[in-house]
Amino acid sequence: MKIICSKSKLLHGVNIVSKAVPSRTTMAILECILIDASTNEIKLTANDMELGIETKIEGEIIEKGIIALDAKIFSEIVRKLPDNDVVIETDSNFKTVITCEKAKFNIVGKSGEDFSYLPYIEKSDFITISQFTLKEVIRQTIFSIADNDTNKLMTGELFEINDNELKVVSLDGHRISIRKIELKESYDSKKVVVPGKTLNEISKILSGEVDEEVKMFFTKNHIVFEFDNTMVVSRLIEGEYFKIAQMLSSDYETKIKVNKKELLSCIDRATLLVKEGDKKPIIININDEIMELKINSFVGSMNEDIDISKEGKDILIGFNPKFLIDALRVIEDEEVTIYLVNPKAPCFIKDENEKYIYLILPVNFNAS
Amino acid sequence: MKIICSKSKLLHGVNIVSKAVPSRTTMAILECILIDASTNEIKLTANDMELGIETKIEGEIIEKGIIALDAKIFSEIVRKLPDNDVVIETDSNFKTVITCEKAKFNIVGKSGEDFSYLPYIEKSDFITISQFTLKEVIRQTIFSIADNDTNKLMTGELFEINDNELKVVSLDGHRISIRKIELKESYDSKKVVVPGKTLNEISKILSGEVDEEVKMFFTKNHIVFEFDNTMVVSRLIEGEYFKIAQMLSSDYETKIKVNKKELLSCIDRATLLVKEGDKKPIIININDEIMELKINSFVGSMNEDIDISKEGKDILIGFNPKFLIDALRVIEDEEVTIYLVNPKAPCFIKDENEKYIYLILPVNFNAS
Repeated sequence: MKIICSKSKLLHGVNIVSKAVPSRTTMAILECILIDASTNEIKLTANDMELGIETKIEGEIIEKGIIALDAKIFSEIVRKLPDNDVVIETDSNFKTVITCEKAKFNIVGKSGEDFSYLPYIEKSDFITISQFTLKEVIRQTIFSIADNDTNKLMTGELFEINDNELKVVSLDGHRISIRKIELKESYDSKKVVVPGKTLNEISKILSGEVDEEVKMFFTKNHIVFEFDNTMVVSRLIEGEYFKIAQMLSSDYETKIKVNKKELLSCIDRATLLVKEGDKKPIIININDEIMELKINSFVGSMNEDIDISKEGKDILIGFNPKFLIDALRVIEDEEVTIYLVNPKAPCFIKDENEKYIYLILPVNFNAS
Repeated sequence: MKIICSKSKLLHGVNIVSKAVPSRTTMAILECILIDASTNEIKLTANDMELGIETKIEGEIIEKGIIALDAKIFSEIVRKLPDNDVVIETDSNFKTVITCEKAKFNIVGKSGEDFSYLPYIEKSDFITISQFTLKEVIRQTIFSIADNDTNKLMTGELFEINDNELKVVSLDGHRISIRKIELKESYDSKKVVVPGKTLNEISKILSGEVDEEVKMFFTKNHIVFEFDNTMVVSRLIEGEYFKIAQMLSSDYETKIKVNKKELLSCIDRATLLVKEGDKKPIIININDEIMELKINSFVGSMNEDIDISKEGKDILIGFNPKFLIDALRVIEDEEVTIYLVNPKAPCFIKDENEKYIYLILPVNFNAS
């Protein structure tokens, strides 16, 4: 194989597919990036068997061929090359010479034939969404997936399509995050659970541009994201997702409106007294038009008042401050509305149209 | 005690003195920042017994007093307060209330009387230098102090003053870095060894402005840096510094001139094949007007040619690439001159006036 392409395009491609290189694996071939120039295109591929990424890069193919190169070393080399044309040449023993200007690297690759290709996906059923929207909706929900494998379904996010609405849901047993997106067209109903890892990696690759699009294809076991010159294939998580409808209620005893930034900075300040691991709740005392926030820890105590507008009863309730911070951080509204029932029932932070709903369970605390 | 000062000024002061708070200590009081408002000034102090920093901050003293507050918690609180006036109030039990707008923190401090004050220094003997120059000269030499305590003197830097010249030297047994600074005035001769930790911390505090000055005071056991509203007191390292004059020679067999940036990027590229720990040298082959750099490792090999201008013999010599990188990074010249004798003798990177001299010992390598 012998190919020539610019350092910048090569680096861009390598950075994209690197997201699917597993950090630890028993299969050495998976630690590689496959360079496939066996047809008329140069394709880079990485695949950890759950998540696979393939991207096409511009370049010239002098001699067709295919090679697998250690991802870490190859990407380090490309990163540090001068900003000029890069020549990659391999021989039948997988000896690879990478040349750029006067710099010449010799490394040994692996047979491209041993590489696990991406599964073949029948691309029939798809929806279209802007890169910006997909990136945003991931950011706005990904924090509330569970970070351990006890319940596999909790480590992914529900993507549910009905007519022209995409609903994304994540939950970890203590909270639920829901975002609804209006699509430009109507589609057949779909319901899949996408692994959190896939979503994390894909949001790093997405440009986030409003006018660039992503096509999402659905099959029984896979989801495929196609955008720019890149294709991301991910397994889905099997099983029936949690029935969240019954956890959402629109009854409330207290409804407050509060400046989001003010509330967020206050909780942020309060948490500095709490060391990781000691689960000190933030205690919220809603009394007339004032929300008093209070935290007590081994280090000291903090309290602060915030002006609010209120409908309904006064209430005293405790929360894990991190859960409030996570939700408030991803809400763009200047003012948020919080609905409360009683100190044992979940609170809801949601907008009027329910474009977003954040459900957070309260925690018990010692009222004294 | 009750004082009022702006959050920004308080934070600035806390950030400065925090540099002298030890990360680990058996004396809990040393983990504190002392707020001393017992006179007409507000002073913050931290002291790890080797290095002490005191800085004055503007503010209003409502009630005189003194308190020691845990540095980590206090600085976290100050950092997260709103940008407004901060009130710090203590009672006779060292209970401390920090208030800013509606936020109110309660923490418990320690008696300021238990704090170790900075040693009293007779400020007679001093030199003056710009903050920029001091910061630069530290950056240009600090990398070649030894990082372990086997030889205490190697963990510091020699500051030697003769007439209107300040010479700063660091060495670790494999290399020597020397910088010479012309001072505005002439001073009595002085020769002290300043701990590397002190220099590292002080260069973080220095503004680096060309037209702001630092006064450096010298006593038998201490050095004091005075600038802005801040005073840094450090113990000196005792003992006679190494006689470096005899290690410096102006004889050479080969003298080359090379573009610094080109050489640095080339070595930087080469080192990506070397994992930390495996001591692979970079092999430099000087042949006519070409410098060939070559590295061989378990991962692969790399070679690159650089055009140079040369006087004297050809030479084949090996170096620890990190040592070359460290020196080249802090040299501002576009072109550097390197003097070599033979593959066993040190090389010198220096300018014509010897404002800087970097001596680096070569390493053995397998020529095959």
